Amino acid sequence: MSVIKVAILGFGTVGEGVYRTIQSHSEELTATLGKKVEVAAVLIRNTQKKRNISENVLVTTEFADILNLEQLDVVVEAIVDKEPTFTFLKSSIERGCHIITANKEMFAHHGKELLELAEEKNVSVGFEATVAGGIPVIQTLRQLLNINRVKQVQGILNGTSNFILTEMREKKQSFTQALILAQENGYAETDPTNDVEGFDAFYKTMILSRLAFGEEPNWQEVEREGITSITSELIEAAENAGLRFKHIASITMLDGQIKATVKPTLVGKEHPFYHVEGVQNAVNVQSDIVGEITLQGPGAGMFPTASAVIEDLVYVCQNPPVNRNLTRSLDVTTEFNKNDKQETWLVHGLIHKPITPSITWIEEMEEGTYVISASSKEVIQLAKQQKNLVYFPILGEYERVNRVKAALKAL
Amino acid sequence: MSVIKVAILGFGTVGEGVYRTIQSHSEELTATLGKKVEVAAVLIRNTQKKRNISENVLVTTEFADILNLEQLDVVVEAIVDKEPTFTFLKSSIERGCHIITANKEMFAHHGKELLELAEEKNVSVGFEATVAGGIPVIQTLRQLLNINRVKQVQGILNGTSNFILTEMREKKQSFTQALILAQENGYAETDPTNDVEGFDAFYKTMILSRLAFGEEPNWQEVEREGITSITSELIEAAENAGLRFKHIASITMLDGQIKATVKPTLVGKEHPFYHVEGVQNAVNVQSDIVGEITLQGPGAGMFPTASAVIEDLVYVCQNPPVNRNLTRSLDVTTEFNKNDKQETWLVHGLIHKPITPSITWIEEMEEGTYVISASSKEVIQLAKQQKNLVYFPILGEYERVNRVKAALKAL
Repeated sequence: MSVIKVAILGFGTVGEGVYRTIQSHSEELTATLGKKVEVAAVLIRNTQKKRNISENVLVTTEFADILNLEQLDVVVEAIVDKEPTFTFLKSSIERGCHIITANKEMFAHHGKELLELAEEKNVSVGFEATVAGGIPVIQTLRQLLNINRVKQVQGILNGTSNFILTEMREKKQSFTQALILAQENGYAETDPTNDVEGFDAFYKTMILSRLAFGEEPNWQEVEREGITSITSELIEAAENAGLRFKHIASITMLDGQIKATVKPTLVGKEHPFYHVEGVQNAVNVQSDIVGEITLQGPGAGMFPTASAVIEDLVYVCQNPPVNRNLTRSLDVTTEFNKNDKQETWLVHGLIHKPITPSITWIEEMEEGTYVISASSKEVIQLAKQQKNLVYFPILGEYERVNRVKAALKAL
Repeated sequence: MSVIKVAILGFGTVGEGVYRTIQSHSEELTATLGKKVEVAAVLIRNTQKKRNISENVLVTTEFADILNLEQLDVVVEAIVDKEPTFTFLKSSIERGCHIITANKEMFAHHGKELLELAEEKNVSVGFEATVAGGIPVIQTLRQLLNINRVKQVQGILNGTSNFILTEMREKKQSFTQALILAQENGYAETDPTNDVEGFDAFYKTMILSRLAFGEEPNWQEVEREGITSITSELIEAAENAGLRFKHIASITMLDGQIKATVKPTLVGKEHPFYHVEGVQNAVNVQSDIVGEITLQGPGAGMFPTASAVIEDLVYVCQNPPVNRNLTRSLDVTTEFNKNDKQETWLVHGLIHKPITPSITWIEEMEEGTYVISASSKEVIQLAKQQKNLVYFPILGEYERVNRVKAALKAL
């Protein structure tokens, strides 16, 4: 039986998860691929660290050693940072290897270049693990995109932020307390900037945009905001209104232009994201034939991410290279999020109510905190006039009356 | 450019949706398949009915005419009933055509035979549209199953039942009122037995079982119960307890045996099915590497179902026939649903509380209605002793204290 030789770059959580899964599920891999999958080499940084790797596997700190292997079919990359990762993967493609990456930052920056090079060299690029961990969102989008025209993609893409928001609400903790807990649980890095300032979700959003629409918006024009501005006070006000804060990425095609935002957003209890809690991720896709589909599952972790990598491994070994979806540009126009469309907002820190007939004051939650209906233009205008005003969009229906009724009922 | 010739059997909601989608998305189909897709023939029953079908298409009441076409690559079946459908599809496979079906009853009964025949003739069988409409659950399971070992599949698989339960709860309607509304909206047939007695969900469950575990449980041993026993009173009692009735199919591998149930079940508000409302469907898959994934979307309707058929069309034309997953039998054992495991139940119609130390009485909702913790053996025992007692499992956490707190808070 012929053999598929795999190299794993990096032996952190993801790298080790992939290694262990290839060992534990070798029977399934052989049955599916008709070939045995073997880890030929692992690239590490620290030679002192003890690792549970079989003796037959080349363990090296030099990428050149890996590139010089006699047989090498697939390179799985599970490092962080853009470099030298990008260089490693370029060399791997040049050698004729399929590549699989779990590195969103690198792939958001260099994905297009890698995909084009792969097309030239007739190999495949797997990147299921860059977005939403174990949820097969890339494969699902690829499939849907065969025929469906995607209109909008929304997602909870950063498990750390979602964990912090959940802890703050459920356990009445401050942002700092919840962050420390996330760090203690291994959900957040020592420097949490990437997660809590929305960079991680931003990179994933750009990857989804390329997949859904064949291109990305101008990065500078994407509204990116993390969760650091969300206070316990705001969370409580939202909860009193039957709403929950979620850090939501949204990508829409509007008049032939991609509009993307990555920011804290409020959702009501009938929204499919309302119950996505802790380190879970979720993705909602709206497309023309099928309508709206939501996928929910583990956004990170050793095995969910390993599962995504292994699914990619099967995909790249089984299918001829297809990069078409990633460079095409569909002519889609939708009526979403027009600037002058009325939306529902929670505004907080309002000192005086302006006399603007086009703003509807739905409910006063507490002093200075209102649920309003207005266009985004008007809300931005409002924030310009009043310093310290914060505002968050509310997705889905907001119905005060029903909410109070339900609460009374529940007693 | 070469052409893929398709015949559509039946021109009801699904058949017409497929026809119209092939016309409206022909560009995408050509781009994806590298071939033009053409509807060559449509099988109809009633020649008097006016239909919007192009003149180039053979419209016939005779299946033989279709089988005699010079070129025929894919047969899409969108009829109801087991016969003559099954015979038509067997002949189609014999002729060397890929087949795609949206007919769950036929496929639950004859799927295995069709798959085996297809394997012999080296053609593919697409059946994405038989389960959960537009949600790509079959494809997702196929992918996950490449490597993951599935432990449990649960689903809301019947949109009609879910619509009725939603209407009953939201609008305080009786079962009959909600059923009439479902019929008026085209969600339920004149004879609604298949939907409300759980047969439709049962067939889908058997199809999912074959996909997930390579086999089906003994049909006679499957606990199948519809929603006709759910009264407004029960729905209100459940709502007061923060619970919602859902008609849930569950398939688990237990000690090498498949255990399947299709029945009304209660879910708490943190369960991913709590918010699956109206004609929506949802499927939750638990597998060993990736953990738990939930998919939610439109369970029926012209275009969602057409989308599933078209995805199948792409799949059967692009991929070599793979029926392996559907005949293999995995050696999976799990610890789910053991008969003596403590579970949470809502019991209604209890006349006297028995003295049984192993039953924990969590809460009395109203006279004769309790939330209890007990094994399924004990609950069955309880029902044997007391006529008219009804009981429903509660999935997920049940927490009285938090619920009351939340309700007070929300005021």
